[in-house]
Amino acid sequence: MQKKLRHTLYKIIFESDTPPGKLFDIVLLIIIVLNVVTVMCESVPLIRRNYAIYFIILEWIFTSIFTLEYFIRIYSAPKRWDYIFSFYGIIDFLASIPVYLGFFIGGARSLLIIRTLRLLRVFRVFKVSRVLNAGDTLMKALKSSKEKIGIFLFTVLMVVILIGTLMYLIEGEESGFTSIPKSIYWAIVTLTTVGYGDLTPHTSIGQFFSAILMITGYAIIAVPTGIITVELARRDFHEHKTLVCPECGKGGHDPDARYCKYCGAGLKKQKLV
Amino acid sequence: MQKKLRHTLYKIIFESDTPPGKLFDIVLLIIIVLNVVTVMCESVPLIRRNYAIYFIILEWIFTSIFTLEYFIRIYSAPKRWDYIFSFYGIIDFLASIPVYLGFFIGGARSLLIIRTLRLLRVFRVFKVSRVLNAGDTLMKALKSSKEKIGIFLFTVLMVVILIGTLMYLIEGEESGFTSIPKSIYWAIVTLTTVGYGDLTPHTSIGQFFSAILMITGYAIIAVPTGIITVELARRDFHEHKTLVCPECGKGGHDPDARYCKYCGAGLKKQKLV
Amino acid sequence: MQKKLRHTLYKIIFESDTPPGKLFDIVLLIIIVLNVVTVMCESVPLIRRNYAIYFIILEWIFTSIFTLEYFIRIYSAPKRWDYIFSFYGIIDFLASIPVYLGFFIGGARSLLIIRTLRLLRVFRVFKVSRVLNAGDTLMKALKSSKEKIGIFLFTVLMVVILIGTLMYLIEGEESGFTSIPKSIYWAIVTLTTVGYGDLTPHTSIGQFFSAILMITGYAIIAVPTGIITVELARRDFHEHKTLVCPECGKGGHDPDARYCKYCGAGLKKQKLV
Amino acid sequence: MQKKLRHTLYKIIFESDTPPGKLFDIVLLIIIVLNVVTVMCESVPLIRRNYAIYFIILEWIFTSIFTLEYFIRIYSAPKRWDYIFSFYGIIDFLASIPVYLGFFIGGARSLLIIRTLRLLRVFRVFKVSRVLNAGDTLMKALKSSKEKIGIFLFTVLMVVILIGTLMYLIEGEESGFTSIPKSIYWAIVTLTTVGYGDLTPHTSIGQFFSAILMITGYAIIAVPTGIITVELARRDFHEHKTLVCPECGKGGHDPDARYCKYCGAGLKKQKLV
Repeated sequence: MQKKLRHTLYKIIFESDTPPGKLFDIVLLIIIVLNVVTVMCESVPLIRRNYAIYFIILEWIFTSIFTLEYFIRIYSAPKRWDYIFSFYGIIDFLASIPVYLGFFIGGARSLLIIRTLRLLRVFRVFKVSRVLNAGDTLMKALKSSKEKIGIFLFTVLMVVILIGTLMYLIEGEESGFTSIPKSIYWAIVTLTTVGYGDLTPHTSIGQFFSAILMITGYAIIAVPTGIITVELARRDFHEHKTLVCPECGKGGHDPDARYCKYCGAGLKKQKLV
Repeated sequence: MQKKLRHTLYKIIFESDTPPGKLFDIVLLIIIVLNVVTVMCESVPLIRRNYAIYFIILEWIFTSIFTLEYFIRIYSAPKRWDYIFSFYGIIDFLASIPVYLGFFIGGARSLLIIRTLRLLRVFRVFKVSRVLNAGDTLMKALKSSKEKIGIFLFTVLMVVILIGTLMYLIEGEESGFTSIPKSIYWAIVTLTTVGYGDLTPHTSIGQFFSAILMITGYAIIAVPTGIITVELARRDFHEHKTLVCPECGKGGHDPDARYCKYCGAGLKKQKLV
Repeated sequence: MQKKLRHTLYKIIFESDTPPGKLFDIVLLIIIVLNVVTVMCESVPLIRRNYAIYFIILEWIFTSIFTLEYFIRIYSAPKRWDYIFSFYGIIDFLASIPVYLGFFIGGARSLLIIRTLRLLRVFRVFKVSRVLNAGDTLMKALKSSKEKIGIFLFTVLMVVILIGTLMYLIEGEESGFTSIPKSIYWAIVTLTTVGYGDLTPHTSIGQFFSAILMITGYAIIAVPTGIITVELARRDFHEHKTLVCPECGKGGHDPDARYCKYCGAGLKKQKLV
Repeated sequence: MQKKLRHTLYKIIFESDTPPGKLFDIVLLIIIVLNVVTVMCESVPLIRRNYAIYFIILEWIFTSIFTLEYFIRIYSAPKRWDYIFSFYGIIDFLASIPVYLGFFIGGARSLLIIRTLRLLRVFRVFKVSRVLNAGDTLMKALKSSKEKIGIFLFTVLMVVILIGTLMYLIEGEESGFTSIPKSIYWAIVTLTTVGYGDLTPHTSIGQFFSAILMITGYAIIAVPTGIITVELARRDFHEHKTLVCPECGKGGHDPDARYCKYCGAGLKKQKLV
């Protein structure tokens, strides 16, 4: 009996392929979003000052819900310690604890902001939806070009360290390049074309090297774009082209082929793994 | 007789496939553009101060034209209320009313700026021109990749909320990160590589996380670009490839095919719907 | 005799497919580059103050050369007035005149900067080189997608006018949005992700709309990129694929085809017009 | 005997295809990275002040290691002068000398920063790893489109010089455009969408030209992206398509081809050179 209850709760809370499981996930997500909105509003000084009492009430409501949810999760999880020390388990714990800690430690309530992390649950809920197909294609494209992107990011890192060090020597402290890490921060701000302007080169030679860095940053953005585009194009092409014959195992059939062009067996549309 | 007049007016004012209809649209568009230029010029303090009288005269001329046009539209529209409550109907109304309202309410004249919205009529006028084909291809490419773009924008939103909250905790009020919404605004400014510099990280750890956010923003721009490019490429390819046999209805013929490879019927070049 | 001299001069000065013609172009280009460097250096206050005398001498040398060149060009041009009123003719004239004008009018010498325009001659010189093939492909790709790029730029313009007007109303003069043109300038700075930070939204609602504008700007950069990429890809593909049989006129042969697959005639590599 | 020692040392220090050679490279790389981290930390004023003594000790340790390594390299190199005057040889020398120089010349110790350049050794170490395949593809793609990228960068340079000169005339010294080189620096900052905001146009006409420059910069980023993407796509396509028959040497077989379509010989998957 108790086992059945735990299993039913598990089905509802942890999975989302049953109607009540889906409903639970959506309701939970709405509560999380409301909570995040509350946390955001509370952070605005003007609002916090005027409606302090309401935020305390809301805080308790959300804390109660999250605490209750956390205990039900622990109760219903088949392997309790696995859940408790899982990524989501830790976030769920951190989402409940700050208010209680607030009784003992002054600043603990500021940890409420950790609750924003619960938004990540969105990705779990969407896992069941069809929308994910698109995200899946993107993730796979990113994954299979991760070596090229790695090389790209590594080169960017090297450029940024070298130019950052160079600018520290050229510009010096008068222009605000007070340390190499700060110069590297400046180089990243420049290479990525963000360009805050909190640090700018003041000397002519510094401006010259900055200009080179900018044009580099401006032109090499083409590289990751090219990588991702080609990868997406290949996947798009394969999705329509790579049918593998279930009989003879040969592939490369036209998208309109309904029979294997090698052995005549019937073809079915297949996904690219 | 009156019915015929209304129909003729309807043809001229609402449609643009007859020569007078086209002429009307172009003249109206020129008036709207002139009006927008006037509104812009009036907003410049120096010009407003020196030529105030001319702007009042011009205002009355444009108001008269727009009011007249609005009444003729109401008169000639087959289904009057449909027009009045349509998107363009409301804009047309709002374009006429501010000057009249100005007699009763002081600030109402500032609503004149709403007239800028009439520029949207450009899209209606261009609907008839051949230029639209290009725009059409773009719109269709955007539409059929809207799921992927949605996922992308959603991920961007999540990143921006999480990093925004984090920076609010790290930087605090001394650096100007006075609330979470403001921190999120900063995160968007940074991720999109706009980088105003009105808010910048002052602490080392804040600069470190900013650098990560910048490189993320710099690299993931590749994703929407890849999506759109692949989509455009597919459409471009299909435009040349997807010939459908008018006899047997089968497609996928090579661009050079003149006869259906399934039934031998003649093929004609067709557009991709 | 004189006719022959004129023709020889014409060959050397206006064309560049003979060795002396090429030499002349390169020498002229070097002089122009030196002149531009001189103009740049002279504009630096510190340098101008210390070496004023040298710049006056250099100015006279360059002026003499350019004046001489201008008269020889007029002398040798087959249709003199055509040259004088051509684009390059006017630039050549403007490059010689400022120093002479300086005797009569005070500020005329500042026109010396016009000489920078002579750098455009680079494009003429490169016309003969093989490097141009690459530039040619780029130009053609840009030209054949000019409709799509036009639509894109027009949409950008509309967005920028509408959001600019909106921000003028929202932010007002306290934030520096003193006129609609200035607001539109801000909108362009933001949409293109330049983000100077000379104008920034100060109100919450202004920051919200800015955020939308930024994400729009960040995402729609994908559109021109996609257009150009597809166009370049098509050209690249065609260059290798679109062989047209000189006998039967049929195309679509594989890149490795040496004989027409329809009639057996020999194929030669052809350029895509 | 000594010859054998030298050869063994050479194998270990200069090459990395033997296990000890690889180990040496990795250990050296870790020391270099630690050294760079030390140099970075030392540049932070707060850290330098408090831990000065530790940095002096670390400096001596790193200097000893680098000096020792330098002498062993000279000793074991087959052609000593070739190594000493090679790119890496000079960097290795510069990495050892500053501390010794510091005894004689005051500021020489600031040259320690040159050690950052030793990071470039990373590229040597990675040469042996498989990761390089990805980097190799990228390099080849960049190389074979270097003409197009050259034309692009040259056009950017021309635009930047012309607009820079124009803005120097328009804005003048009040807005900070004090010289043409500075104006060109501003034009690069703007075109690349970095947008520091240290120099901004103050006049209406200046803002108008800036807006044009921004939109240009925003739109033409599409060009290098398109070039790289097409190049990567072609390489990607070829990698799967260009099978060359080992018998008759003919290529262009379909990806699914297992026998040469010209001579019937068996095909094996080959890499694109």
